[in-house]
Amino acid sequence: MNRIAVRSVVGGLLGGRNCNRYISTAVAVRPLDGAEFLNRRNGDVLGFYWRRMMSTVPQSAETASLGEKEQKESQSSVSDDAKKGSDSVVVSNYWGIQRPKITREDGSEWPWNCFMPWETYKSDLSIDLSKHHVPKTFLDRVAYRTVKLLRIPTDVFFQRRYGCRAMMLETVAAVPGMVGGMLLHLRSLRKFQQSGGWIKALLEEAENERMHLMTMVELVKPVWYERLLVLAVQGVFFNAFFVLYVLSPKLAHRVVGYLEEEAIHSYTEYLKDIDSGKIENVPAPAIAIDYWRLPKDSTLKDVITVIRADEAHHRDVNHFASVSIKHLFHYHAFHWFFTILSLL
Amino acid sequence: MNRIAVRSVVGGLLGGRNCNRYISTAVAVRPLDGAEFLNRRNGDVLGFYWRRMMSTVPQSAETASLGEKEQKESQSSVSDDAKKGSDSVVVSNYWGIQRPKITREDGSEWPWNCFMPWETYKSDLSIDLSKHHVPKTFLDRVAYRTVKLLRIPTDVFFQRRYGCRAMMLETVAAVPGMVGGMLLHLRSLRKFQQSGGWIKALLEEAENERMHLMTMVELVKPVWYERLLVLAVQGVFFNAFFVLYVLSPKLAHRVVGYLEEEAIHSYTEYLKDIDSGKIENVPAPAIAIDYWRLPKDSTLKDVITVIRADEAHHRDVNHFASVSIKHLFHYHAFHWFFTILSLL
Repeated sequence: MNRIAVRSVVGGLLGGRNCNRYISTAVAVRPLDGAEFLNRRNGDVLGFYWRRMMSTVPQSAETASLGEKEQKESQSSVSDDAKKGSDSVVVSNYWGIQRPKITREDGSEWPWNCFMPWETYKSDLSIDLSKHHVPKTFLDRVAYRTVKLLRIPTDVFFQRRYGCRAMMLETVAAVPGMVGGMLLHLRSLRKFQQSGGWIKALLEEAENERMHLMTMVELVKPVWYERLLVLAVQGVFFNAFFVLYVLSPKLAHRVVGYLEEEAIHSYTEYLKDIDSGKIENVPAPAIAIDYWRLPKDSTLKDVITVIRADEAHHRDVNHFASVSIKHLFHYHAFHWFFTILSLL
Repeated sequence: MNRIAVRSVVGGLLGGRNCNRYISTAVAVRPLDGAEFLNRRNGDVLGFYWRRMMSTVPQSAETASLGEKEQKESQSSVSDDAKKGSDSVVVSNYWGIQRPKITREDGSEWPWNCFMPWETYKSDLSIDLSKHHVPKTFLDRVAYRTVKLLRIPTDVFFQRRYGCRAMMLETVAAVPGMVGGMLLHLRSLRKFQQSGGWIKALLEEAENERMHLMTMVELVKPVWYERLLVLAVQGVFFNAFFVLYVLSPKLAHRVVGYLEEEAIHSYTEYLKDIDSGKIENVPAPAIAIDYWRLPKDSTLKDVITVIRADEAHHRDVNHFASVSIKHLFHYHAFHWFFTILSLL
């Protein structure tokens, strides 16, 4: 694992970088040990800004011109924070949002905005891939049959194009965690109830699936009709899952649990095709090497293996969520809803 | 700051605890230094499960019976992970989701599910509270006037009941970050674009506001009609803000920036009432002391001060987001939309 050295730069703001470009401002580096790193990450002023605002970087090339525009504004109204750093990095926003630079111990800069060194991890590959939740209740059977039904058109469309399948289905897989997290968040607010554990768990799942997508996109570039299909599927799936989660979080999580079981199966087939040579075992993209802490000489096979382990973990989480998470609205609300429906 | 010792317990699952109760299972504790803590948090198997699934604890008392029900299931199908820990903590779910116990150096257990020790921080109280974004564009003026207009009924309803005001308005304040984060997440998926920095920043803002709410609820208990009002307001505000963000993220963030400026003003008035004795300066609740790393003898005044500093930071983030975040859908979509509208 690369040791991380946090730069104590104040007053710099990264402008317009996406996950594929390296941060290019050179500033003095001071290595920190573990405890100091933790303190610095959490304790001091810089850590506060850093942790509270993990990235203020505008998105990719769409805001590339931000730097120049904000520089003019900054001349008229520069915050104290910005002044402190003016000798090292150019201030690009007068609201004084700063971001420290991160470098690895080998001197190379941390190039990613979407995840930080402390958010990387090593997958547990010993996770049991064959676990299956045997449908017990009526809702379980509805969920299981729905997923099996949805598999049919998916198999017809993708056949053995597993790279394309992974890339497009990850755009779907990242939706449930976010929808669930948001609806639980709203419930926690209106009921004045604690629910932090589940909200964070689901949001983290969504972010993890999005990282799967960002990785697959490095390997399999989508063509125009695949992009259109993704738009259409997102429009339908997001709304359908939202309604499903409102009506029954249990059913929603059970569906996701079974979807993950299918994903594990698909990734196993993907690995078989790589092993047999049908799919070329290309080198792993840099984003995957950093995110999963893979060895530098990793290949596509290693990446798919860790992605599959992630899906197994999500399967466990969602099957457990299905038994744990209660309805979002009081039962009586549904009682009245169906009563009124029956009167119409 | 309390030093944290991570317990190397495998196989335990906390059942049915909310943020107000202490974890009661006693297990051996081994203190770790900073670097080992960081490694353990990020590197090993336990860290993987821990970090990936920050909490699998079912919500509060609603699932208090989970422990018994799952114990029966666990006898028939216990995963390897669960078996490892069977001599120390009872397995309560056969899906093998485990969670290590966290204790402070003084031996007391970490009682909260909704945030972990490494998610606590010390506020930067030197943040400039008086900064105001002077409306420049048409959208800025729309945002500013909307917020000023909304203040009128709010002031009429709450008058000088700042505790009640804070508690109820935090249920509103926690919505924009979540809606924005989710819509940016969806955009990142369908466009295959990096956007991790902003998504995380907004989701973190939502979580921070929710922590404000959890803190205020310890101090100001809502009565039944206030709860009803919160339900109604959430129903309206969530949908309205969702539509607003879809149409114009810039306007949405500008509105939130101005709302935060009003929040800072309200909290300043709250502090004046505490200083003048109109509101009793009660001791700070435990959740606030842990979350903001306040001294043990902190009072309501200290809590409101750090909350106000948080709002100032959110103000900065949202005003910056307003200039940085681009539209969610391609301009031509709106062009056609308005063309069709004009033909109807």
